[in-house]
Amino acid sequence: MSALPTPVRAPGDTRPAAGVEQTLARCRALVTPALRETVARSHPWIGEMAAYSFGWCEVGGAPSGSSGGKGVRQALAVLGAEAAGAAGRVAVPGAVAVELVHAFSLLHDDIMDGDEARRRRPTVWKAYGTGPAVLAGDALFGLAVEALAGSGAPAVRLLSRALGDLVRGQADDLLFASRPWTGPERVRPREYRAMAEHKTGALLGCAAALGAALGGAPPATVAALDRAGRHLGVAFQAVDDVLGIWGDPAVTGKPVHGDLRERKKTFPVLAALDSPAAGELSALLESAAVPARIADLIERAGGRTEALAEARRQVTAARTALDGAPLAAGPAAELRSLLDFVVRREV
Amino acid sequence: MSALPTPVRAPGDTRPAAGVEQTLARCRALVTPALRETVARSHPWIGEMAAYSFGWCEVGGAPSGSSGGKGVRQALAVLGAEAAGAAGRVAVPGAVAVELVHAFSLLHDDIMDGDEARRRRPTVWKAYGTGPAVLAGDALFGLAVEALAGSGAPAVRLLSRALGDLVRGQADDLLFASRPWTGPERVRPREYRAMAEHKTGALLGCAAALGAALGGAPPATVAALDRAGRHLGVAFQAVDDVLGIWGDPAVTGKPVHGDLRERKKTFPVLAALDSPAAGELSALLESAAVPARIADLIERAGGRTEALAEARRQVTAARTALDGAPLAAGPAAELRSLLDFVVRREV
Repeated sequence: MSALPTPVRAPGDTRPAAGVEQTLARCRALVTPALRETVARSHPWIGEMAAYSFGWCEVGGAPSGSSGGKGVRQALAVLGAEAAGAAGRVAVPGAVAVELVHAFSLLHDDIMDGDEARRRRPTVWKAYGTGPAVLAGDALFGLAVEALAGSGAPAVRLLSRALGDLVRGQADDLLFASRPWTGPERVRPREYRAMAEHKTGALLGCAAALGAALGGAPPATVAALDRAGRHLGVAFQAVDDVLGIWGDPAVTGKPVHGDLRERKKTFPVLAALDSPAAGELSALLESAAVPARIADLIERAGGRTEALAEARRQVTAARTALDGAPLAAGPAAELRSLLDFVVRREV
Repeated sequence: MSALPTPVRAPGDTRPAAGVEQTLARCRALVTPALRETVARSHPWIGEMAAYSFGWCEVGGAPSGSSGGKGVRQALAVLGAEAAGAAGRVAVPGAVAVELVHAFSLLHDDIMDGDEARRRRPTVWKAYGTGPAVLAGDALFGLAVEALAGSGAPAVRLLSRALGDLVRGQADDLLFASRPWTGPERVRPREYRAMAEHKTGALLGCAAALGAALGGAPPATVAALDRAGRHLGVAFQAVDDVLGIWGDPAVTGKPVHGDLRERKKTFPVLAALDSPAAGELSALLESAAVPARIADLIERAGGRTEALAEARRQVTAARTALDGAPLAAGPAAELRSLLDFVVRREV
């Protein structure tokens, strides 16, 4: 395990980086009231589904003990504004918008992927039905646009660009499933990287960039924060893929080898299929082989190492993007800690 | 049939009002290139589903002989700008946005309602699958926001308000299905009217208002056009409901008594349930009675007459809204013809 790259922690060490929990809590405290107020403006039935998806309530509306998400996107928005020298509160409309878009995309992706559980609870479509879940997602999307409507054209453009990329990434992800494991039609790691940038990175980049834009940063700074977020997204996805195969179910909340059981085309698999082991691995993937055997071959073929190296490269690229921008020192340091936190999960 | 109210034509007379087809064709010619260009910017797979939903192609991408929609919303946007004294082309971003939102809402509503056919073709979810159809709808929504991103805060606000109303209307429509036919929990005609204003009127109002706003109209004029469109939406829905029970399948493309077979709570039904025939009608609706018998009772109880009277009242209110605004005479006359055209369908 000593060969793990720097941004990934040793097994069992699930402590957050020093200060990151405080950063996240501070940003949540700043953004949550506005987020709740925005959601409360919707139709009561829609509002309940939205609140359920945020972990604020159970089915029926009773308050929930569920933790909800960490709020990484809202924190990126707030830190983006602060890094531009503005007060974090100017980022609140952007932070609300990106959290709403994130919730919308989880809601609709769970329908498309047929996922029945998220954060150890039934997904919205499973709890309320597919039609209502489609509608609740649409509502969250609409509220995100409303939240940003008064923030000017550059802000709306950043959001709509991220929305376009989210859809593009999800479309590619759905289409990858029907592509072959080998041959000229196979999914190359670089296509996967582009998919991950769109599906995961675009909204993280949008969050930080929106914060900076609302904080009055010049276009070059906004673009640098957008880039950093996009690299972070790819890094996150690579780590998530490693966890999806080798993660401890007690920590991830997902079944062991889950992604292999579903024969998902994730980064470690695609990297291994780009190695001399491709023939053996594709035969195994097309057979009824037990996931543990496939996982072993992927690891021997370098798929795990390559995925973690990719994560490290992407975090480095994100840091480089931040280094090149004129950011306020304190918030920039918090941004760097947040980068590490997002990819530093138990592998 | 001589008792039919003015805006509804005699059976067999399906001619459009003089000049309306020309207006619609002129506006389509102005808007379609930009609409196609916007759709072409999306992921190829998504772009095909979007083009299919607009009637531009068949499944697989081959050009279609299908007629698509009439483009009432884009025409309202163009006429809104012209009525404000501007060139119709300034409304194009708004026209594109409302057509995209309309296509998005049809796509998602068809999933929620389980509708398998639209304009005599399989719906997108039926042709491509539910997940892809959810995603295609999301993409259209995102493109609508992108189309308007550079048009200023008032335009984005008009669109996001309409989006919120669309969701609210669809939520109420879905919830009406599980409400009882009689008793204090029954759906009152005025609730139905509010639902129709949200679900159908909001986007028609938004179209005309967006055009006016992009044409530089003062807020009072923008609001008047929004109101006119909202009244038009309720009128359209009331006529559509009459057609859904008594319409000629050869003209509507829908099965005879279709809405009654599905026991839909539409305006004529709800109006009849507000009459002394409520007890008899609800018993019939809860039985296995053939639709023709139910249709007869609704007609005898005044449900059909009341729905058509509602349509007439709403068209009058729409005209009154237009009369009160300082509009350029020619485009205002075209707007009035368009109002009549939308509700003047064979009953």
